[in-house]
Amino acid sequence: MPVTEPTRPSAAEEARTLVAATNVATLASLTTAGDPWASMITYGLLDGAPVLCVSHMAEHGRNLAADPRASLSVVAPEQPSDPLASARITLAGVVERPTDAEFDAARAAHLAGVPAAKTYIDFSDFSLWVLRVQRVRWVGGYGRMDSASAQDYAAAQVDPVRFHAAGAIAHLNADHANALRDMARALGGYPDATAATCSDADRYGLDLRVQTPRGMAYTRVGYATRIDDAGELRMATVELARRSAALLADEAPLSKEAQR
Amino acid sequence: MPVTEPTRPSAAEEARTLVAATNVATLASLTTAGDPWASMITYGLLDGAPVLCVSHMAEHGRNLAADPRASLSVVAPEQPSDPLASARITLAGVVERPTDAEFDAARAAHLAGVPAAKTYIDFSDFSLWVLRVQRVRWVGGYGRMDSASAQDYAAAQVDPVRFHAAGAIAHLNADHANALRDMARALGGYPDATAATCSDADRYGLDLRVQTPRGMAYTRVGYATRIDDAGELRMATVELARRSAALLADEAPLSKEAQR
Repeated sequence: MPVTEPTRPSAAEEARTLVAATNVATLASLTTAGDPWASMITYGLLDGAPVLCVSHMAEHGRNLAADPRASLSVVAPEQPSDPLASARITLAGVVERPTDAEFDAARAAHLAGVPAAKTYIDFSDFSLWVLRVQRVRWVGGYGRMDSASAQDYAAAQVDPVRFHAAGAIAHLNADHANALRDMARALGGYPDATAATCSDADRYGLDLRVQTPRGMAYTRVGYATRIDDAGELRMATVELARRSAALLADEAPLSKEAQR
Repeated sequence: MPVTEPTRPSAAEEARTLVAATNVATLASLTTAGDPWASMITYGLLDGAPVLCVSHMAEHGRNLAADPRASLSVVAPEQPSDPLASARITLAGVVERPTDAEFDAARAAHLAGVPAAKTYIDFSDFSLWVLRVQRVRWVGGYGRMDSASAQDYAAAQVDPVRFHAAGAIAHLNADHANALRDMARALGGYPDATAATCSDADRYGLDLRVQTPRGMAYTRVGYATRIDDAGELRMATVELARRSAALLADEAPLSKEAQR
């Protein structure tokens, strides 16, 4: 059964969402010899631009002061058992010391992301750095990856559902197994689905893991309209369930097999 | 009360122990332009040397093939609420493709660390890389940091207690509060301790968080002898408790105040 590929978040949206889901990253900076140096840092966000606060007594602080080229790796805070199934991003660009009004905004952004920084952010050996993002690489897990332009990254919104839907997903899987199976049958392209579980959710739809007599598969079903708030997830999934049930009822006279 | 500073694990021991506690790190590599590039990787260990398995279709794989300079950041798997209180290390050096007998050992080491790699480790686009560690930087949390030489890192042993003592520490704190307080009084340099909890343990001793009328403090008490197996932790803490109690009993006639 051919289905229209439902909308997925773009790589830029995935990246903006992931970077907003935690406050810990790994910085790659350059030593004075030009060697790469990997180190843990914390960050806040100023319109998607990571704001670091590092001591020039630390090697990475001296590195940034001497060469502004920098990259950040951020890994999704919910770790699957297989690390390579994790969503993660690399941001790359150059760091700059913010000045004037941007300094105040960057300071506030760092404190919002890292409340513990209030004890040292104003120490004289600490500096704020804003990463001017020039390149974005997103990896969603095995076989899901894409790049995003700096412009798309800057313009993208944080997904209001992703990283905030664990409870809703658990509820769907525990109490609405038949509805998920019907979604996979009617909207996901698997009319022979025998079972389905929701593996993830975002503002555009649900990712489903589908059991069929032919084996296991992954698919996706899209909401009728985009969600702008996590609170809308329930209504959107109710609509998906009703639409699936109606489609399967319409098809029933033609193909009783598909519903069994 | 002056106390002999008990032995602590060296930076080299801390680094070897931390790198053995997980299989996920962030790699800093160099792009063809010489820019830093941060990306998540998984690893196994060959005598403390991280063994990576990366695809040359991924940017970091192409980076390593073009320039072997590399650095890894590894963060302790048990994350405290304040990320900067985490233990973490940076290893830096150059990667090499293992050959002959070392190839087989490196392949086995990677699979031991990353069992999921069995599905792709022999694909033609994946290569094994061994990081020849030249520099080691360890940060134990706020204000605890040191460097280690490549030689000391190579020679150091993995601590058999650190990262395997969470249950024992919880038991000490739940059921042996008085013994911990007595250790802080008799052996930790805080004769006025009113309470103490164990915050960490390693093969040489216990880290204690101490309450006193003057405020909160951290101290450390050392076992009579080094532990070579996590199973010896119970005996070592029993000896600490007995030694503390004996010392306090000896002092009692002189200073009843110190025991209250």
